[in-house]
Amino acid sequence: MSHILAKVREQSPLIHNITNQVVTNFTANGLYALGASPVMANAPEEVEEMASIANALVLNIGTLTKEQVHAMILAGKIANKRNIPVVLDPVGVGATTFRTEKAKEILQQVQITVIRGNASEIATLAGIDAEVKGVDTAGSYNMEELIRVAYQNLGVPIIITGQVDYITDGDYVTTVSNGHELLTKVTGAGCLLSSVVAAFLAVEEDVVQASSHALSYYGVVAQNASQHATMPGDFQIELLNQLYAITSEEVDAQSIIATTKLERGSI
Amino acid sequence: MSHILAKVREQSPLIHNITNQVVTNFTANGLYALGASPVMANAPEEVEEMASIANALVLNIGTLTKEQVHAMILAGKIANKRNIPVVLDPVGVGATTFRTEKAKEILQQVQITVIRGNASEIATLAGIDAEVKGVDTAGSYNMEELIRVAYQNLGVPIIITGQVDYITDGDYVTTVSNGHELLTKVTGAGCLLSSVVAAFLAVEEDVVQASSHALSYYGVVAQNASQHATMPGDFQIELLNQLYAITSEEVDAQSIIATTKLERGSI
Amino acid sequence: MSHILAKVREQSPLIHNITNQVVTNFTANGLYALGASPVMANAPEEVEEMASIANALVLNIGTLTKEQVHAMILAGKIANKRNIPVVLDPVGVGATTFRTEKAKEILQQVQITVIRGNASEIATLAGIDAEVKGVDTAGSYNMEELIRVAYQNLGVPIIITGQVDYITDGDYVTTVSNGHELLTKVTGAGCLLSSVVAAFLAVEEDVVQASSHALSYYGVVAQNASQHATMPGDFQIELLNQLYAITSEEVDAQSIIATTKLERGSI
Repeated sequence: MSHILAKVREQSPLIHNITNQVVTNFTANGLYALGASPVMANAPEEVEEMASIANALVLNIGTLTKEQVHAMILAGKIANKRNIPVVLDPVGVGATTFRTEKAKEILQQVQITVIRGNASEIATLAGIDAEVKGVDTAGSYNMEELIRVAYQNLGVPIIITGQVDYITDGDYVTTVSNGHELLTKVTGAGCLLSSVVAAFLAVEEDVVQASSHALSYYGVVAQNASQHATMPGDFQIELLNQLYAITSEEVDAQSIIATTKLERGSI
Repeated sequence: MSHILAKVREQSPLIHNITNQVVTNFTANGLYALGASPVMANAPEEVEEMASIANALVLNIGTLTKEQVHAMILAGKIANKRNIPVVLDPVGVGATTFRTEKAKEILQQVQITVIRGNASEIATLAGIDAEVKGVDTAGSYNMEELIRVAYQNLGVPIIITGQVDYITDGDYVTTVSNGHELLTKVTGAGCLLSSVVAAFLAVEEDVVQASSHALSYYGVVAQNASQHATMPGDFQIELLNQLYAITSEEVDAQSIIATTKLERGSI
Repeated sequence: MSHILAKVREQSPLIHNITNQVVTNFTANGLYALGASPVMANAPEEVEEMASIANALVLNIGTLTKEQVHAMILAGKIANKRNIPVVLDPVGVGATTFRTEKAKEILQQVQITVIRGNASEIATLAGIDAEVKGVDTAGSYNMEELIRVAYQNLGVPIIITGQVDYITDGDYVTTVSNGHELLTKVTGAGCLLSSVVAAFLAVEEDVVQASSHALSYYGVVAQNASQHATMPGDFQIELLNQLYAITSEEVDAQSIIATTKLERGSI
């Protein structure tokens, strides 16, 4: 499976990130460590031209402004014209009306290849929070139901990351059971993952294939990192090391991916 | 004393940071390591709503713009209405007229729970630079006099950090004698401390109690970090490790806190 | 030679960086580790006053906006009036028309002490891409010819960094053959170098002397770091350690600097 990882390292795709100011440095370093080429550009005067030379585009609303969302839409439309993948990371959707509205505006204006978020962000974005919320624990969800209904409502491939990651393109639901709890202690771990997904999509058209391999790569990287580092400072650095050092064979040997074909009409 | 630290870790308060672009990542990672929940949001369209769900607000003018200060005031007013703590970090006040004026504007418009700065920033803000400057060394101050006069002029609880940290709420002057010199080699060490103070204030109303415990926690963390790391790169990472790993017992055992009640009329 | 390094550490010059949002933290930490004093300020309302107290100014267009370039020009003009050095880092010039035009606008409006870029950036800026491109490899250049022609066209001292670094002021071409490949895996390694050059220029007027010593210092730091760290996460941190720890004697012992006087009319 890890031929996709090998392809990323060979081709070093240029990933144009319009992202939040908290994670720019970590995202760039993570993409370099993976073997991809990061570029950050936000100015409306140049995002279209930058998206014109990129191999994938990441739109992350973590510290969005009106101007930045405008730039995202400009870049997204060019990406669509050029048929390069666009990943949307709807950071914090639901926390404020502004975020929710702007994320929806991006979804209306730009054809998104895949949305990556946590359960609460995806639920909010799909407008299905109430229906899918678990009853036992606040914030717990029936993940399989959530991703199916979210796909139905949004009509776009979706990745929900958590203890187990879920991916769907409407035909299949794939789960990836790698990763490590310390990821929740590193700011931008999710944001970097969205950019890693974009890098895999830049070299592999099949969204579920590219996404599940990106997620298992990232999850195995985190697992390996946790063997060298048990505290968040060290773990953050070790993630960068392992993104760089891990071999396709190591990823293959440790990946836990399962796929279920959806029954006709189940979505 | 370290029950406040335990409370932060239990409750994981949401700290809304409107801060400078140099320290966003380090601040977020530091708050995660402590056990708090960071959020960064600057857009005027959403800061009020974000402040409405936060447990504390941090206003840091390190790379201020006109627009960002506008957002700070919007968020600050909501924080005041909701009675959640607001920490002001007047980074670089005195370096430019713009910084000084904007810091004063924030102080006029928003009720600040505590200001945290170094001696020169606090002196500038309080307009008392000349009166309190030491005579032996440029930049040296009689700290006790400085904080008393600054409180008199500003009417707001103040933290002055340095080799020894000073805190006053007008009734007491508390000193914390923890910390390590390598903190001056890590950009954002002071900014993160302001956010840590906000996290402690989110779970403990008494400003001097919360602040002195935040400062001694942070200082003991730095001391422990310096035992593992003697160079600035390593130290920066080890700070994050120790923010996470240190126990209440370790903090208690090493804290050096002293409090003097101010005599009537001394301020 | 390393008296310049010693002077930086003694005088701790204040370096005003108007730079991209990806590298602010790493640049500030790198300058602290070196022994200089970083400040970041972008607001048009304060950049002139900040440049008025700085010892050198760095203009880096990595995530430029119209507003930021306006601030760069304001700050640059004050720097020129005060006769303090100004380093231009034309990040990504050529990738978009906006970048190319704005970089040229800065060059027209501000007297730049030295431009630091990679071969492709310098070629683009000097409008000589076609003439100097090597024939064997896409993106390879005859570096000596490139820097000579670039100087001729731009009329400003130039540093081109790569496997070997080239510096010219029109009279001499100096090469520095230190450095390490892992630098290409750390985002902002070039940007930080531009700020390090600015710090050396702040204490030494001779552009070639200051620049070559800054480059050899940085290159030897990278070489030493590579002996402790072989992966990009560790290497990034070890760079900060070595920027701090390396002695003038170590730099002197390992520097590989060569200088050729240009023949009359060769430029």
